[in-house]
Amino acid sequence: MKTGPMARQEPLAVFLSGHLWRTIPEAGRRRLPHHAALNGGSSMITLYDYLPSQNAYKVRLLLSHLRRPYLTKQVAIFDGAGQTEEFRAKSPTGAVPVLELEDGRVLVESNAILGYLAEGTAYLPTDPWERAQVSRWMYFEEDFIQNGLASLRHWTMTGKLARRSAETIAAKQVVSRKTLKILDTWLEKRRFLTESGYTIADMSVFAYVSRADEAGLPLANYPAVNSWVMRVRDQDGFLDTVYSYSIDPSSGSELP
Amino acid sequence: MKTGPMARQEPLAVFLSGHLWRTIPEAGRRRLPHHAALNGGSSMITLYDYLPSQNAYKVRLLLSHLRRPYLTKQVAIFDGAGQTEEFRAKSPTGAVPVLELEDGRVLVESNAILGYLAEGTAYLPTDPWERAQVSRWMYFEEDFIQNGLASLRHWTMTGKLARRSAETIAAKQVVSRKTLKILDTWLEKRRFLTESGYTIADMSVFAYVSRADEAGLPLANYPAVNSWVMRVRDQDGFLDTVYSYSIDPSSGSELP
Repeated sequence: MKTGPMARQEPLAVFLSGHLWRTIPEAGRRRLPHHAALNGGSSMITLYDYLPSQNAYKVRLLLSHLRRPYLTKQVAIFDGAGQTEEFRAKSPTGAVPVLELEDGRVLVESNAILGYLAEGTAYLPTDPWERAQVSRWMYFEEDFIQNGLASLRHWTMTGKLARRSAETIAAKQVVSRKTLKILDTWLEKRRFLTESGYTIADMSVFAYVSRADEAGLPLANYPAVNSWVMRVRDQDGFLDTVYSYSIDPSSGSELP
Repeated sequence: MKTGPMARQEPLAVFLSGHLWRTIPEAGRRRLPHHAALNGGSSMITLYDYLPSQNAYKVRLLLSHLRRPYLTKQVAIFDGAGQTEEFRAKSPTGAVPVLELEDGRVLVESNAILGYLAEGTAYLPTDPWERAQVSRWMYFEEDFIQNGLASLRHWTMTGKLARRSAETIAAKQVVSRKTLKILDTWLEKRRFLTESGYTIADMSVFAYVSRADEAGLPLANYPAVNSWVMRVRDQDGFLDTVYSYSIDPSSGSELP
C-alpha cells in the first residue's frame, strides 16, 4: 500500500476520471466554469461523519456517484464529541455532517453540502426554475422528514421509543405518514422528484425515506415510493452501504 | 383608480425601476443573464398567501426589498382551504406560501421561493461557496426554527398551548432556546448571517426569530440577535407590516 504524497495523487486521478465519466454523457448539461476552482474540485475535502447518520450518508452517496475521494473524521456524537468547543466552532448545532475544505473553511447542513458539491455536475440543474424545484424538495426534507421519519427511526432503532410519550410518538407518526403519502402521490406519475432527472433532491429524500421500514412504516404500503427507491438504487455509483446504530454502543444514550 | 390593461403596466414600471435601483449600486454583483427570462422578471407573479403566516411574510419581505409588484390570493388555511384538491395540486402539504408564474407553473416552500426570486439580485450571491453558506442558514431555519420557535409562537398566539402536553411544550422550548443561543453566539461578531451582507438567509431567519417575544422567549435575553434584528429593520425596502393570528377568527382551530 502506498503512503506519502503518492497516496494522495492516486484518488485525485480517480476523481478526475470519475467526474468526466459522469458529465460527458450528459451532453445537455455543461459544467459551470467555476466548478473546479470553487467547490474544492482540485483539493482534498474532509467529511466529519458519524456512520449511522443518514444525513451524513446523503453526502457519502453523492460523493460515491461523483467518484470523488475524501477524507473522513468520525465524530462520536452520542459520547459528546459533537458538543466540544472545537467541534462546535465548525458546527454550532453539534451535528454532522460537516464539510471541510483543505484551507479550513467549513460548511454545515447536509442539504447545503449536497448543493455545494453537486454544483457543476449532472446532479444539480443550472436553470434557476429547475434548481428551485430541487431545493423545494430539500427544504421539504429538512422540515418534514428530519423532524418526522428520521426521529421516529432513530428512536425505534436505539430503544428510545419506550422513553417517549404516546403523544410525541403519535405526532411523529402523523407527520411521517403524511410525508410518505405526499411522496407516493407525487411519484405515481414521475420517475424522480423533479423533471431534471435524478438529482440531489432524490438523494436527500432517499436517505431516510428508503429506511422507513426501520421506523415501523413499511414502504410496501407506498408502492410509488417503493418503485422510486428501486430506481435510485439503480443509479450509477449508488452507495449501498449503510450502518446501523447498533455499531455504536453509545447510541442508546440521549444526544447531549 | 385605473383598471384594465393600464393597471398591469403601471406596477411593471415600478418593478423595473425598483429592480434597477437595487442592482446598479452593487457594482461587484452582476445580474445573471437568465434572470429576466427565467424567474418571471417580466411577468406578473401570484403569491398564495395567509397574512398571519411568517413563512409567507418572508416572501413579502423580499418582494418589498425588490420593489416587485405581485398579485395575492389569500388561503384560509384554518378553514380547510389549504386541503382542497385544487390547492393541494399546487401545494401537496397544503401550506402557504405558493408562488405561481403567469404560465401557471408553481413553486412551494418559502425558502425555495426566496432562492428563486432572489436569483440575480443583491440578496443572493453568485459564488457557489457563498451561496452554500446562505442556504446553510435556510436549511437550519427549516429544521430548527420552523419546528421550534414557529410552532411555539403559533400555539402561544392562538390559545393552543393549553392543549399541548408539558413534554411537547418543553421540547419546543429547548430547541427554541438552543436556536436563539446559537444565533446569539454567531451574531456576536457578525453584522449578518453570512459574509455576503444582508441576504435571503437573514430574511428567512428574521421572519420568526424577530417575533420570539410572542413565543414567550424575550429577545432582550439575546442581545446580539436583538441588534441584528435592528440592522435588518434598517434595510432599504424593509416591510414592517405583520399580521396577528387574531385577524382570523378561525386561527384557534387545529390546522386540518
